[in-house]
Amino acid sequence: MVDKKLTGAGLRGQVAGETALCTVGKSGSGLTYYGYDIKELADKVSFEEVAYLLSRGELPNATQLAEFKARLKQQRGLPQALKDVLERIPADAHPMDVMRTGCSFLGNIEPEQDFSEADAKIERMLAAFPSILLYWYRFSHDGKRIETATDDDSIGAHFLHLLHDKAPSKLHTDVMNTSLILYAEHEFNASTFTARVCASTLSDIFSCVTGAIGSLRGPLHGGANEAAMELIENMQNADDAEQQLMGMLERKEKIMGFGHAIYREFDPRNDIIKEWSEKLSQEFGDSRLYDVSVRCEEVMWREKKLFPNADFFHASAYHYMGIPTKLFTPIFVMSRVSGWTAHVKEQRANNRIIRPSADYTGPAPRPVPALADR
Amino acid sequence: MVDKKLTGAGLRGQVAGETALCTVGKSGSGLTYYGYDIKELADKVSFEEVAYLLSRGELPNATQLAEFKARLKQQRGLPQALKDVLERIPADAHPMDVMRTGCSFLGNIEPEQDFSEADAKIERMLAAFPSILLYWYRFSHDGKRIETATDDDSIGAHFLHLLHDKAPSKLHTDVMNTSLILYAEHEFNASTFTARVCASTLSDIFSCVTGAIGSLRGPLHGGANEAAMELIENMQNADDAEQQLMGMLERKEKIMGFGHAIYREFDPRNDIIKEWSEKLSQEFGDSRLYDVSVRCEEVMWREKKLFPNADFFHASAYHYMGIPTKLFTPIFVMSRVSGWTAHVKEQRANNRIIRPSADYTGPAPRPVPALADR
Ligand SMILES: CC(C)(COP(=O)(O)OP(=O)(O)OC[C@H]1O[C@@H](n2cnc3c(N)ncnc32)[C@H](O)[C@@H]1OP(=O)(O)O)[C@@H](O)C(=O)NCCC(=O)NCCS
Ligand SMILES: CC(C)(COP(=O)(O)OP(=O)(O)OC[C@H]1O[C@@H](n2cnc3c(N)ncnc32)[C@H](O)[C@@H]1OP(=O)(O)O)[C@@H](O)C(=O)NCCC(=O)NCCS
Repeated sequence: MVDKKLTGAGLRGQVAGETALCTVGKSGSGLTYYGYDIKELADKVSFEEVAYLLSRGELPNATQLAEFKARLKQQRGLPQALKDVLERIPADAHPMDVMRTGCSFLGNIEPEQDFSEADAKIERMLAAFPSILLYWYRFSHDGKRIETATDDDSIGAHFLHLLHDKAPSKLHTDVMNTSLILYAEHEFNASTFTARVCASTLSDIFSCVTGAIGSLRGPLHGGANEAAMELIENMQNADDAEQQLMGMLERKEKIMGFGHAIYREFDPRNDIIKEWSEKLSQEFGDSRLYDVSVRCEEVMWREKKLFPNADFFHASAYHYMGIPTKLFTPIFVMSRVSGWTAHVKEQRANNRIIRPSADYTGPAPRPVPALADR
Repeated sequence: MVDKKLTGAGLRGQVAGETALCTVGKSGSGLTYYGYDIKELADKVSFEEVAYLLSRGELPNATQLAEFKARLKQQRGLPQALKDVLERIPADAHPMDVMRTGCSFLGNIEPEQDFSEADAKIERMLAAFPSILLYWYRFSHDGKRIETATDDDSIGAHFLHLLHDKAPSKLHTDVMNTSLILYAEHEFNASTFTARVCASTLSDIFSCVTGAIGSLRGPLHGGANEAAMELIENMQNADDAEQQLMGMLERKEKIMGFGHAIYREFDPRNDIIKEWSEKLSQEFGDSRLYDVSVRCEEVMWREKKLFPNADFFHASAYHYMGIPTKLFTPIFVMSRVSGWTAHVKEQRANNRIIRPSADYTGPAPRPVPALADR
């Protein structure tokens, strides 16, 4: 039997390449996009500005931003063939499977013919992903064929509008904006690294994003915000939360939405989304979910020195905005596509195929026995 | 500006994990699956035995093999919803986009609910991938809705049967069998590594394979057999081949189907497929493609000490069997799905999320300028 050899497992701490896009766990609050601190971005700019920044390296000026937003608005419609595909996916499908398939299918009918088309395809995905998700969701759940081309000013508002059939409030629009900024980019996380491995074969951008969606789907990665929701919705109040958590820790269960592969003391995104979750709880008029979340944070730190990552307070925040739990991780996709595609461009600009080695732990050379002798 | 830093780029030579599945560039001929030498496997067993070996660690006995093949045969049919999707993909789509989408869609309607279903899903993909490819191909190119459930004894024969509307000859069946064995598994190549990164988030097996297909699509990886075909089909004879190659080398162009990230002297798969290509050229009655391929091999070794990898003689071999060039890389998928999924199982059995680090090369921390000041 092979020893469980975890040192260096998961390439933890090993440098797999270079990036100019992002720092994680370094200076300042610990997270910057092209040198801009995440807190300042969340305070001052729109997600569209961040998406532009990630794909071009600089924030847009007023004209560039207006043009960028206009192009995104124009591309919210879906071709009939894609709608036909989405209508064939049942209501009980995993919404991340829907996103993965919608992205992959788009790559068939609107392919990236040439790397010079990358920016155009990035904008198409940014614009179309909320439409793909909600066209499927509303058709499979409400039997409605919605018009996905709306006039909302932002991607966040577009999403909420399609979901609720009405334009969202300013508060909800602002929360979506911040949420999309927080999730946009995070260096060589597993889904982004998937996109870069794919890009390193010089494959097309839809393949890279399709693969990344598949990785983000995993419960150890993007799936954590949904798992956090399932956890907190069954907690009656803060004391109940504490009791349940203590039991889980005793049984050595993993608490989703806590811990991080890189951050050691705190996740800089947590304070930001936590503050919005509190505001939403006041508007909503029932602070149970917020209160139990706060208690979870206290208990996890006290007991295990584990802190909430970006996902934990997202659960209550999304819930307060009336977003069904199963759509949480797809929102992550709508945002992170900006980071993934920026990494694809960066990988292409200085590429070598990503092909590591493995330590062999299998049987020694052996002859092939005849069928009758097995 | 950042220096081009290629040492260690692409994780070349860095150990990213353990595997019992395969050795590349080590003892014997340099390639073993679970300790069995590739030459012996290609000589003595069927692809179905290799697929069984990869997923279970041991070759099947006669009963196990018969049962395994019977299950594969039973699963060649496609659900109507999947056919509907394939009918909506145009004839000029990239066949790897079709495979990626077909696999992803299958994951919606027949999801892996639980890791205990992995073996069942692996068999389903092995059985259904030729059907997915050829249902789309025959519908989009010939306007025919083919019945994909045939009674052929092997995956290779099933594929050729659907393509040509008739059961294949023994020679062609044997070549397909060998070809599928050669392509089945190759340690931590880019597509397999993609599948493992995805698996490390504990995502489902369809996500892992969908992502791997996207990586295999790249011209630096699986796309090389098609590129090799495009190269040799424009060579009139051996002397013309030599002249064209010399020109390409002078212009420092990459010759697809040559070179390898790990092998340094030869690719053990080359001799095997080369021999079949020669046999096929004799049956076909025109050896031009084989002759120019042989000359390419000589010139590349003489000039650059570069050797043909598995892809190069596959081009002529597939062509002699009447396989359209655009279907070459999808055949690779039909085979490699056995290796990918074995790696998924192995990753799950001893998992840590694959999350490397990056060297930061971007701007120093900077304040966010107001929109008016940009
Ligand atoms: C994010 C995560 C995958 C990082 O993995 P990692 O780098 O392998 O984790 P670490 O090496 O920091 O783990 C150190 C220890 O803390 C434990 N731990 C980490 N996160 C934990 C959690 N959420 N709940 C309970 N224990 C946890 C680990 O089990 C490990 O214990 P061990 O040494 O006894 O095995 C991991 O923290 C996790 O699974 N969190 C829950 C899922 C989640 O929220 N994902 C979203 C990330 S943004
Ligand atoms: C397979 C491949 C991606 C390996 O990449 P790699 O590990 O980065 O390659 P190496 O480090 O061995 O390359 C060494 C040198 O040989 C050159 N070289 C490698 N393969 C070459 C080829 N097929 N034609 C011309 N030159 C080649 C490289 O450009 C490099 O030259 P440089 O040092 O002047 O830049 C590469 O050989 C290639 O692109 N081959 C063609 C595509 C192909 O057949 N892929 C299928 C692989 S199974």
